[in-house]
Amino acid sequence: MKTQLEKSSSKVFYWPIRVYYEDTDCGGIVYHANYVKFFERGRTEFLREFGLSQQELMKQNVAFVVSRMDINFKRAARLDDMLIVSTQITQVKHASFIFYQRIEDDNHKIYCEATVKIASVNPTEMKSQVIPSAILTEIKRVS
Amino acid sequence: MKTQLEKSSSKVFYWPIRVYYEDTDCGGIVYHANYVKFFERGRTEFLREFGLSQQELMKQNVAFVVSRMDINFKRAARLDDMLIVSTQITQVKHASFIFYQRIEDDNHKIYCEATVKIASVNPTEMKSQVIPSAILTEIKRVS
Amino acid sequence: MKTQLEKSSSKVFYWPIRVYYEDTDCGGIVYHANYVKFFERGRTEFLREFGLSQQELMKQNVAFVVSRMDINFKRAARLDDMLIVSTQITQVKHASFIFYQRIEDDNHKIYCEATVKIASVNPTEMKSQVIPSAILTEIKRVS
Amino acid sequence: MKTQLEKSSSKVFYWPIRVYYEDTDCGGIVYHANYVKFFERGRTEFLREFGLSQQELMKQNVAFVVSRMDINFKRAARLDDMLIVSTQITQVKHASFIFYQRIEDDNHKIYCEATVKIASVNPTEMKSQVIPSAILTEIKRVS
Repeated sequence: MKTQLEKSSSKVFYWPIRVYYEDTDCGGIVYHANYVKFFERGRTEFLREFGLSQQELMKQNVAFVVSRMDINFKRAARLDDMLIVSTQITQVKHASFIFYQRIEDDNHKIYCEATVKIASVNPTEMKSQVIPSAILTEIKRVS
Repeated sequence: MKTQLEKSSSKVFYWPIRVYYEDTDCGGIVYHANYVKFFERGRTEFLREFGLSQQELMKQNVAFVVSRMDINFKRAARLDDMLIVSTQITQVKHASFIFYQRIEDDNHKIYCEATVKIASVNPTEMKSQVIPSAILTEIKRVS
Repeated sequence: MKTQLEKSSSKVFYWPIRVYYEDTDCGGIVYHANYVKFFERGRTEFLREFGLSQQELMKQNVAFVVSRMDINFKRAARLDDMLIVSTQITQVKHASFIFYQRIEDDNHKIYCEATVKIASVNPTEMKSQVIPSAILTEIKRVS
Repeated sequence: MKTQLEKSSSKVFYWPIRVYYEDTDCGGIVYHANYVKFFERGRTEFLREFGLSQQELMKQNVAFVVSRMDINFKRAARLDDMLIVSTQITQVKHASFIFYQRIEDDNHKIYCEATVKIASVNPTEMKSQVIPSAILTEIKRVS
């Protein structure tokens, strides 16, 4: 899975993240696993912005899980930094889709970027399942 | 709720905790909220040691939630430190019980201590409910 | 340390918190240690709002650490909930001060409340030290 | 960066991880970012086992940071599960090296696997720097 080029035509959603003590480690910088949390906040707010509530999806017996992440750590963020997560959908398939996400600051310096594959699964058995067509249409609308 | 004196008669359970990067913050020390996680690991292992599985309790429609914590932060732990959580039950009532817990190192230096009130609730409604008598007997056995 | 009554005269600062997946546990509710993180975000934003940067304090060789927390867990928050942390200083002494904090929703339902004692320490030795008078004046100004 | 095949000749180190409440989310499974923490514990214990203390390295003005992770999430772990992280070094270069890691259970079911690129940087400026030859020799010894 190669890093996706930013698609100029797709909807990009921006979400601000402030770095708190909880996010840092004794190296003085943001602990690497916490960027993974930041990316998830970005995807959640992306879906909320475009009207796709994860709790609603659960009621329709569809769950989306992260099945793959390629993460590139490029620069170290620090306490009090104000970061921006950008999120867009770059590819949609029958049972999965791909987000390209980036964490930057106000000066467009990139701290971290990731390609995130989301798989549609049955919530009880966690087995891959085709995305219901109504939801697939919604995902294509925002990609 | 006063800090409980250590009861000499009760069962005390010890559980080791290694401090990793994930536990520290940019002040160079363990982030204070993470002691709360360490205490929970200690209580979980205490219950496991004495045969009280939380998943088993769930099946009997009993959930235990933390309803109160008084925490005393006394000394700062650091990366790679080897800590020991001690856990004991100091009081048992009809719908709640109290743990006294301490985090120390090998030299009996105390880093953090806490009194933790656990309430018995109905898992679906999260309302207080009397602890079933069979489970109450078990809790009294290990206190 | 008793729970402080809300002081009507002091400055109260409100900060919104959205509940994400990372904040919840398999009980379906916010994991109790994460309220401790939420409280810390509230205090950090309180200090930022009133012009007291923790990084600035560090440069003046003053560090503030949490030395005591009394936490009352009253209601379970869930995924996607929008919470509000209220923060105020209720007491100021020579080497410590006390925050009273509350986590509520839009309908003033209280989820969690805490009394948090902050101690002034020397950052290198972590020993208690008197708060420098200029900073003490600032803290009294916002309490 | 392709997923590395397991090198049969290299040293593989195994580290047990118990799943606690703190690791799970309201989907009932381990929150995906927490596998990233588990992998870091595995690498830390690998280095400790083979005599490479990260605090010692810091004193020699060498810091190792995660510069890239490719993670494959294959199966959902749950509360109380006992997992095993396996860790090995699969490639060593002048200023970086690569870990291949896997999280499995007792029955060799794979939950998550990752290829982790570690870069050697100057701790103050976070710029890439060649690994000192004495340390490089140590890393090659355990790969």
